[in-house]
Amino acid sequence: MNGNILKEQKSVGFIGLGNMGHGIASNLLKAGYTTRVYNRTKEKAKDLVEQGAILVNQPSDVIESGGIVFTMLFDDSALREIAEVDENFVKKLHPGGIHVSLSTVSPDTARSLSAHHSQNGVTYLAAPVIGRPDRAAAGTLFILLAGSVEAKQIVSPFLEKISQRVFDFGDLPWSSNMAKLAFNFNIAAAIEAMAESFTLAEKNGIPRAKMAELLSETLFSGVVYKGYGDLIAHHSYQPGGVPLMLGWKDIRLVLQTAADSSTPMPIASLLRDRLLSAISKGRGDLDWSALALGASDDAGLGK
Amino acid sequence: MNGNILKEQKSVGFIGLGNMGHGIASNLLKAGYTTRVYNRTKEKAKDLVEQGAILVNQPSDVIESGGIVFTMLFDDSALREIAEVDENFVKKLHPGGIHVSLSTVSPDTARSLSAHHSQNGVTYLAAPVIGRPDRAAAGTLFILLAGSVEAKQIVSPFLEKISQRVFDFGDLPWSSNMAKLAFNFNIAAAIEAMAESFTLAEKNGIPRAKMAELLSETLFSGVVYKGYGDLIAHHSYQPGGVPLMLGWKDIRLVLQTAADSSTPMPIASLLRDRLLSAISKGRGDLDWSALALGASDDAGLGK
Amino acid sequence: MNGNILKEQKSVGFIGLGNMGHGIASNLLKAGYTTRVYNRTKEKAKDLVEQGAILVNQPSDVIESGGIVFTMLFDDSALREIAEVDENFVKKLHPGGIHVSLSTVSPDTARSLSAHHSQNGVTYLAAPVIGRPDRAAAGTLFILLAGSVEAKQIVSPFLEKISQRVFDFGDLPWSSNMAKLAFNFNIAAAIEAMAESFTLAEKNGIPRAKMAELLSETLFSGVVYKGYGDLIAHHSYQPGGVPLMLGWKDIRLVLQTAADSSTPMPIASLLRDRLLSAISKGRGDLDWSALALGASDDAGLGK
Amino acid sequence: MNGNILKEQKSVGFIGLGNMGHGIASNLLKAGYTTRVYNRTKEKAKDLVEQGAILVNQPSDVIESGGIVFTMLFDDSALREIAEVDENFVKKLHPGGIHVSLSTVSPDTARSLSAHHSQNGVTYLAAPVIGRPDRAAAGTLFILLAGSVEAKQIVSPFLEKISQRVFDFGDLPWSSNMAKLAFNFNIAAAIEAMAESFTLAEKNGIPRAKMAELLSETLFSGVVYKGYGDLIAHHSYQPGGVPLMLGWKDIRLVLQTAADSSTPMPIASLLRDRLLSAISKGRGDLDWSALALGASDDAGLGK
Repeated sequence: MNGNILKEQKSVGFIGLGNMGHGIASNLLKAGYTTRVYNRTKEKAKDLVEQGAILVNQPSDVIESGGIVFTMLFDDSALREIAEVDENFVKKLHPGGIHVSLSTVSPDTARSLSAHHSQNGVTYLAAPVIGRPDRAAAGTLFILLAGSVEAKQIVSPFLEKISQRVFDFGDLPWSSNMAKLAFNFNIAAAIEAMAESFTLAEKNGIPRAKMAELLSETLFSGVVYKGYGDLIAHHSYQPGGVPLMLGWKDIRLVLQTAADSSTPMPIASLLRDRLLSAISKGRGDLDWSALALGASDDAGLGK
Repeated sequence: MNGNILKEQKSVGFIGLGNMGHGIASNLLKAGYTTRVYNRTKEKAKDLVEQGAILVNQPSDVIESGGIVFTMLFDDSALREIAEVDENFVKKLHPGGIHVSLSTVSPDTARSLSAHHSQNGVTYLAAPVIGRPDRAAAGTLFILLAGSVEAKQIVSPFLEKISQRVFDFGDLPWSSNMAKLAFNFNIAAAIEAMAESFTLAEKNGIPRAKMAELLSETLFSGVVYKGYGDLIAHHSYQPGGVPLMLGWKDIRLVLQTAADSSTPMPIASLLRDRLLSAISKGRGDLDWSALALGASDDAGLGK
Repeated sequence: MNGNILKEQKSVGFIGLGNMGHGIASNLLKAGYTTRVYNRTKEKAKDLVEQGAILVNQPSDVIESGGIVFTMLFDDSALREIAEVDENFVKKLHPGGIHVSLSTVSPDTARSLSAHHSQNGVTYLAAPVIGRPDRAAAGTLFILLAGSVEAKQIVSPFLEKISQRVFDFGDLPWSSNMAKLAFNFNIAAAIEAMAESFTLAEKNGIPRAKMAELLSETLFSGVVYKGYGDLIAHHSYQPGGVPLMLGWKDIRLVLQTAADSSTPMPIASLLRDRLLSAISKGRGDLDWSALALGASDDAGLGK
Repeated sequence: MNGNILKEQKSVGFIGLGNMGHGIASNLLKAGYTTRVYNRTKEKAKDLVEQGAILVNQPSDVIESGGIVFTMLFDDSALREIAEVDENFVKKLHPGGIHVSLSTVSPDTARSLSAHHSQNGVTYLAAPVIGRPDRAAAGTLFILLAGSVEAKQIVSPFLEKISQRVFDFGDLPWSSNMAKLAFNFNIAAAIEAMAESFTLAEKNGIPRAKMAELLSETLFSGVVYKGYGDLIAHHSYQPGGVPLMLGWKDIRLVLQTAADSSTPMPIASLLRDRLLSAISKGRGDLDWSALALGASDDAGLGK
C-alpha cells in the first residue's frame, strides 16, 4: 500500500444509503469530499445528488483503484454479496484500496472478508458504529475501529467527519464486531433487568415510570437507561427502533461467539429464552425492548 | 400533628454516626440546625461536637417531644432495637413527632415500624438514600422518601440540606424501601452483565478495560457502569465499598419481596446463585462486585 | 432410656389421621399393636375404631410414659403446636419415650424439636415418608429415618409394618428432612425437564404423549416419569395430589436450606420462578405438576 | 416401490461397524440374513466374517438394487459423505431400495437426506437407537422409527431382531431425530438435577451416594438415575461412555432446534452453560455426566 498517495485522496465511495448510511454519506459530502454513492433504491440518493454526490448504477462503480470505499449494508449476506461474491469489488479497489465496513455483522463475516480482501491486495477495516440515525445525521456516532494500523491512519480524517469518537480495537478487524455484539448484549441485559425491577415495583404499588425515573436520574444516567426505561415503563414497543427479530439475531450471534470460545453467559441464555418467547407470541416486529413483556407475562400482568 | 408549630422547629436529633450518618449530620449542623447526636462509639462524634453538635448518652436523649429525629443505623435489627424495642423512643417523640429513617432496611421492617409508631402517635418516614459516604459528606445524596404528606412537608427543608434531590414514593413508607431494593438489584444485574461481556471479550483477545471504556464513555455513561466497570475490568474487589455479604442480604430481600408478591425475577435468581457461590469460595468480605468473578471462573479463567 | 423395657412394648400412640396417617395407623392396627389415635375431626377415626383403635379426646392422651408416639401432621406449625407448644406432649412421653415424626417438615423444625425433646428426656426421630395415600394404605411407603441409633432399633418393628423399606440417614434427625427436600426437588426438576421437552416436541409436530411414553418405557422407568409424564402430556393438573402452593413451600425450603449452606442450585432457582409465575396466574390450587404450563406459555401455546 | 418383492428379501447391507454397529450387524447375521458389511477399519469385521458376513471394499458395495441398507456412522458428516455425497449410494439402491439410518444425527440432516433419497427413487428411514453397546450386542435396543409406512413394514422383521421395542414416530423421518434429541436432553437435565441435590446433601453432611440410592431405589428406578447417579455420587467421569464434547453437540442441536421453532428451554440453556464451562476447564473428554462438577465447583467444593 502506498500511504503517501492514499493520504492525499480527497474522494470516497459509499454503498448503502439507508437510514444510517444516508446521514453518514451526507457528512462526508459536507466535509468537502468527492463522494460517489450507490443505493439499490435510487430515490434515497436524490438530496445527496443535489448536495453534489455522484450517483452510480453499480455498487462497484463507486470504487477507484487504491481508493477508499465505505459500506453500510443491511446484514451479513448483503455485505458479502457486494464485497465478496461480486469480484469487481476487490478488482477495482486493487491495489492498495481500503474497504471500511460500517455494518454490524458477525465476527465470522469480518474474518472471511478480511482474508478474502487480503488475498486480493485490498485492506478490510471493520468499523461498526454505535448510534441511531439521528446521530448518523449529526455526525456524532461512536465508531469501533479495527484493522491494519496504516489503513486506520489513512481513513482517520474521514471518520472524524462522521463521528464524535473512534474506539480502536486493534489489528484484527473482527475484534470490533465482537465488541459491538458484547455492547448490544449489555443493552439487552439492561432491558431485562429494568423489566424485572419495574414488574416488582408494579406488583407492589409503585409506578413503573417512577422506578425508571429513579434509575435514569441518579446513578444510571446514560442514554440506554433513559431511553429504554421510558419505553419499558409505558410498555411502548411500537416498531421504529431495532425490531425484536433483529435483536434476536444479535443475541444469537453473541451466543454463537460465546459457544465458539467456550464462554458461559447465563444472562445471554436468559435473553435467548425471552426473545424466543416474544417471537412465539407474535412480537417479532415490535421494538426489541418488547422482550420486557416477558417479565410482566410471568407475573400474571397483562400488557 | 400540629404542622404550624413543627414547621418552626430549628432543632433535630440524629442517631447513628457511621460513614454515612456522620456526613449527613454534619450538613444539618452547617445548615444552622441545633443538632443533638448519639453514636455508640463516642469518638466518631468528636469533630461534630467541635462544630457545635450536642452529644448525648442515650439514643432517646436526642429526641424532643413533637420533634424530628433522623436515624442512620447498620441494619434492620439495629434500627428496631432503638426505635421499636426501646419504648422511650416513641414516648419522647409523642405527640406528633417524626422519625426519618435513612437506613436501607426491608419493607417488612418499615411496615412494622410504621404501624408501631402510628399506634404511639408518631409518624414514620422512610427515607433510604442513594450514594456513598462522599456524597453524604457533600450533601449530594439522593433520597427516596415515603410516608405521610404532611410529615414530608415538614422535613422537606432538612432534606434539602443533605441531598441534591428527593424522590417521592407516596404515602406508604415501605414503598421507598422496596424501590431501594429494586434499585440495588439493577446495580447487581449491571455488574453481572458487564462481567459476562468482559469475559467474552477477554476470551476473544479484547482487553476487559477496553470493553468497560466502550460502555461507560458512550451510551452507559452513569456512575454505575463507570465505577463498577473499572473494578470489574481489573478484578479489583478490595474491601471498602459494599461487602459481598451485605449485597447478598439485599438480593435476598429482593427475592423475598418478589416471592411475597409472586413476581418471578430470573436475573435476581441468577444473582442469588452467583453470590452464594462467591460466599462458598471465601469472597464474602470483598466488594460485592466480586460476584463478577463467577463469570471468569465458569470460563476457566483464574482471577 | 431403658431399651429392654421399650422393646417389649406392644402399644403405640398416633396423632393425625389425614389421607396418609389413616392408612399408616390402620397398618399398625392390623399388625396387632394396641393403637391409641387422635384426630381433630373425629369422623376420620370411625373405621379405625371399628378395627379396634382407641380414640382419645386430646392429642397427648395417646401418649404413655416411655412409650412411642407417631405424628403425621399437615405442616411445621401443626407439628410444633402439638409437640412443642403443648407441654403435655413431652411430659407424658417422659422418661425415655420416642416421638416418630412422619411429616415432611423443614430441617429447622426438626432441629428445634429435637433439641426441645432432648431437654425433656425424650427422643425425636425424623421419619418423613415417600409415597402417596395408596402406598400408606398398602404399607409400601419408603421411610427416611434419622435420629438416635437405639431409638431407631426400638421403632424398627413398627416401621416394618408400615413401609417396604427404611433408608437410614444417620444420627441427626434433620438429615432425613433435608434428604426429603432434596428428593422432592428432583421430582420438580423432572417435571420441568419433561415440560420443556414435550413442548419442543409439540412445536415440531410430535405428540406430547409419545414423548412421555418414550421416556417412561425405556430408560426413565420410575414412577415419577410415568405418573407425572402422563399428567404433563395431557395438561391434566386437577387438584388431588400435591397442590402447587404446597410444592412451592417445599422448593422455598430447598432454596432456604441451600442459601443457609451457600449452595447455588440454578434449577431450584428456575423452579422458584416457574412456581411463582403459576401462582400469579391463579394455578396455586392445581397439582404442582402444573408448573409445566410455564414452558407452554413461554412457547406461545395456550393450555 | 414393489413391496411384494422386497418382503421376500433375505439379505441386507450394513455400513459402520463401530461399538454399536458391530453388535447390531451381529444380530442380523444370527437371525439368518445374508449380511454384506463395510467398515473403514477392516479388522473390526473379522469375527463377523467368521460368522458368515460378506466383507466388501467400498461402502456402496454392500448395496443391492431395491434392497435394504443400514448405516450406523459417527456423525452427520460421516453419514452425508457416504449416503449423499457419494452418488453410488442411491444409484445402487434404486429403484425402491430402503436406507435405514441408525445414527443419532440432526433433524436437518434427516430432512436433507430424506429429500435427496426421495429424488433418487429411494426411501430414507430414520431409526436412531437408545442403548449402549451392551444392548446393541444383546439385541435389546430401543428404536425410534420414522418414515414411509410401507418401508417401515418392510424393515420390521429386521428391526425385531436387533431391538426389544420399536417406537413409531410417524411419517416424517426427522421426527425421530427430534425425539432422540429431546430424550437426550432429559438425561442431561437429570444429571444436573442430581448434581445439585447431591451437592446440597454433601454441604449438609449427607453422603452423596446416600442421595443417589434414595432416588434410584424408590421413585426414580430407571436406568438413567441408577447409572448416572452412581457416577455423579462418586465423581467418576472416566472416559468410556458419551464424551462431554459429544454431549455438548447434542445439547447444541437441542438448542438450535428449539430456536428454529421458537421454543424457550431454560434448562437446556443452563446445560449449555454447564457444558461450556466444563469444556473451558478441560473436561471435554470425560464422560458427559462430568457436567455435574459444575454444581460442586459453584459450591466451593473441589472435585
